[in-house]
Amino acid sequence: MLSVRGGLSYTVSVTIPYRPALAGLEPYGAPQLDVPVTLNVNENPYPPSAEMIADIAAAVADAAASLNRYPDRDFLALRADLADYLAAESGVRLSPEQVWAANGSNEVMLHILLAFAGPGRTVISFTPTYSMYVEYARDTFSEWQTLPRRDDFSLDLEKLPEELARIRPAVILLASPNNPTGTALTGDELSAVLDAAKGNGPADAPGSDCLVVVDEAYGEFRRDGVPSALELLADHDNLIVSRTMSKAFGAAGLRLGYLGAAKEIVDQLQIVRLPYHLSAVTQAAARAALRHSASQLSQIAALREGRDAIVRRLHSLGLDTAPTDANFVMFGTFPDRSEIFTRVLDRGVLIREVGPAGWLRVSVGTPEENEAFFDALEEAMK
Amino acid sequence: MLSVRGGLSYTVSVTIPYRPALAGLEPYGAPQLDVPVTLNVNENPYPPSAEMIADIAAAVADAAASLNRYPDRDFLALRADLADYLAAESGVRLSPEQVWAANGSNEVMLHILLAFAGPGRTVISFTPTYSMYVEYARDTFSEWQTLPRRDDFSLDLEKLPEELARIRPAVILLASPNNPTGTALTGDELSAVLDAAKGNGPADAPGSDCLVVVDEAYGEFRRDGVPSALELLADHDNLIVSRTMSKAFGAAGLRLGYLGAAKEIVDQLQIVRLPYHLSAVTQAAARAALRHSASQLSQIAALREGRDAIVRRLHSLGLDTAPTDANFVMFGTFPDRSEIFTRVLDRGVLIREVGPAGWLRVSVGTPEENEAFFDALEEAMK
Repeated sequence: MLSVRGGLSYTVSVTIPYRPALAGLEPYGAPQLDVPVTLNVNENPYPPSAEMIADIAAAVADAAASLNRYPDRDFLALRADLADYLAAESGVRLSPEQVWAANGSNEVMLHILLAFAGPGRTVISFTPTYSMYVEYARDTFSEWQTLPRRDDFSLDLEKLPEELARIRPAVILLASPNNPTGTALTGDELSAVLDAAKGNGPADAPGSDCLVVVDEAYGEFRRDGVPSALELLADHDNLIVSRTMSKAFGAAGLRLGYLGAAKEIVDQLQIVRLPYHLSAVTQAAARAALRHSASQLSQIAALREGRDAIVRRLHSLGLDTAPTDANFVMFGTFPDRSEIFTRVLDRGVLIREVGPAGWLRVSVGTPEENEAFFDALEEAMK
Repeated sequence: MLSVRGGLSYTVSVTIPYRPALAGLEPYGAPQLDVPVTLNVNENPYPPSAEMIADIAAAVADAAASLNRYPDRDFLALRADLADYLAAESGVRLSPEQVWAANGSNEVMLHILLAFAGPGRTVISFTPTYSMYVEYARDTFSEWQTLPRRDDFSLDLEKLPEELARIRPAVILLASPNNPTGTALTGDELSAVLDAAKGNGPADAPGSDCLVVVDEAYGEFRRDGVPSALELLADHDNLIVSRTMSKAFGAAGLRLGYLGAAKEIVDQLQIVRLPYHLSAVTQAAARAALRHSASQLSQIAALREGRDAIVRRLHSLGLDTAPTDANFVMFGTFPDRSEIFTRVLDRGVLIREVGPAGWLRVSVGTPEENEAFFDALEEAMK
């Protein structure tokens, strides 16, 4: 169909079968701006070591020698390496068959919802929480409902059993530490959620439990005494713990998310995964990176200290912070957070305008980046 | 729930919220067997050159230096390289904004069906055809219908307009060359399908056309005089042409599928893609591989000749073949194809038991692999 605007003729199609449900939506994603200091997507600020880079390159060269062949569809070697990593990090030993991986946590979540949610089933989470969750539900045509967190961003566990009995969700998505608030679940809270999930699964699977997905994307940053949900896996077949190499591990560019769960759960995920979803290059690079776990994890203590220092300094500026077990801090509140965000950005520091009204979020950077952030923030608050 | 089998007690859960629709299903995939000659998944038998391997390793090392950062979400540099490749291969020049890519053609297809199909919308194809298509429909909760090909595996174009008016499909999946038959669409057939698609789009998008997805996974192997659907893109906003680096390009281990289409189509795909779906490592490796397009494509002539030689020799054995524009040959028919498949496998050659009853499929290998196949087949047929 030919149309005219501003004197120029051009083609406008009205005949593409657009899906009404997607009308007006924009692709998800934080702004990708080229600024000196990026503290907006909770990356690890430290690049890989020269040794790790060389090891990845050598492993990829080895894999590329048979690049004409399809990759190993089941990638049990990588799953074994991830199981080893989890054992070293958390003390919990899983078998390779209890581990699953995909191109980023978001593909892991897609597999979970494809296998266990979908049309006619409901996924719930507790707001404020990670803004991608609603997109996972949308992309799997699952019903989406949220329950509010309390004012301190913790869960309202007293009401939970009756809420679950009413909603009968197939899947409960629970970020711990939560994003963007930083709030972690205690062991008692985790147990209470798992108890409440018993028998409250979807109506089309009578007698089933809700599947509880604990998203530990930021798990390695948790404070001493805060447990990993991995510790509860042995006793709960309806529990999935998801992890990622994007945050503490410092490999966001690799896009490798994974999970631990009962083998029966992983078997279901394999039905809905697209075959060969993890390339030979990704498998080789991830395995090479995991050989450097010790040095990657050695950065965590410094990042935790950086986080706690940021919290103290924000308090000294008279600001509130949400208690955080992650590598970011949600702080505020500001009558006009957009103005603060923009003023900080004008000074070359990109943070994130996210979370409840009035709050902003900053990732923990290097000491120099954190300093640049405070310089910019103090100027912005003047 | 505790159960007992064979005297050992172990835990069996009946409380996982299994989806009834997935009951009894198995993960998709050809058998991964360790045999000397694998002619079962239509790979290019030639490994990359030493130069290409070194280039990939260097590019990945460069990308790994900032692996702690998320990749470029929009990967316009890779999309520009793919557009250049398509221009060199087909003579059709697309802009980077008209190109989209994902982890394998199957993720490309998932994006297409998420954006344009889904619950209440119908996807159709023409059987026999690629066995993953029904899974793409299942994983996007789309309705799935098939129309039969004629006995020579061509489309019944006379009936098509009325069938489309009856079904009102959102998406038509059309492999050309088709898998497993090898059948390519002529230019006239392609035009007839596009004509029939006009105005027959889904009822919830009145006046829309069906989206026609021409899957040219094997496009580079087409015989002289057979057009690429890319040539029709300029005139058809409802056309998508998908390609892959897995077949002729010889990079199945890289998992890089892509497509060309109107920018308006690509804009919709971006809404449903998971952010950062293509890793920095994948982007770097694919761009490095594409710098070696000329040498990769130089293998195609030999593979085409190998294919035509296989066809002649199968005929000399008194066997039928389906006309093929791909790097595989469907041949038969056998009263018990499973027996032939197994006997060939017993002799160390893995082919594929796929397609209509009685037929088998063999990929074009190196001359030595093709020879091993015929040795095994002739023994098996005795």
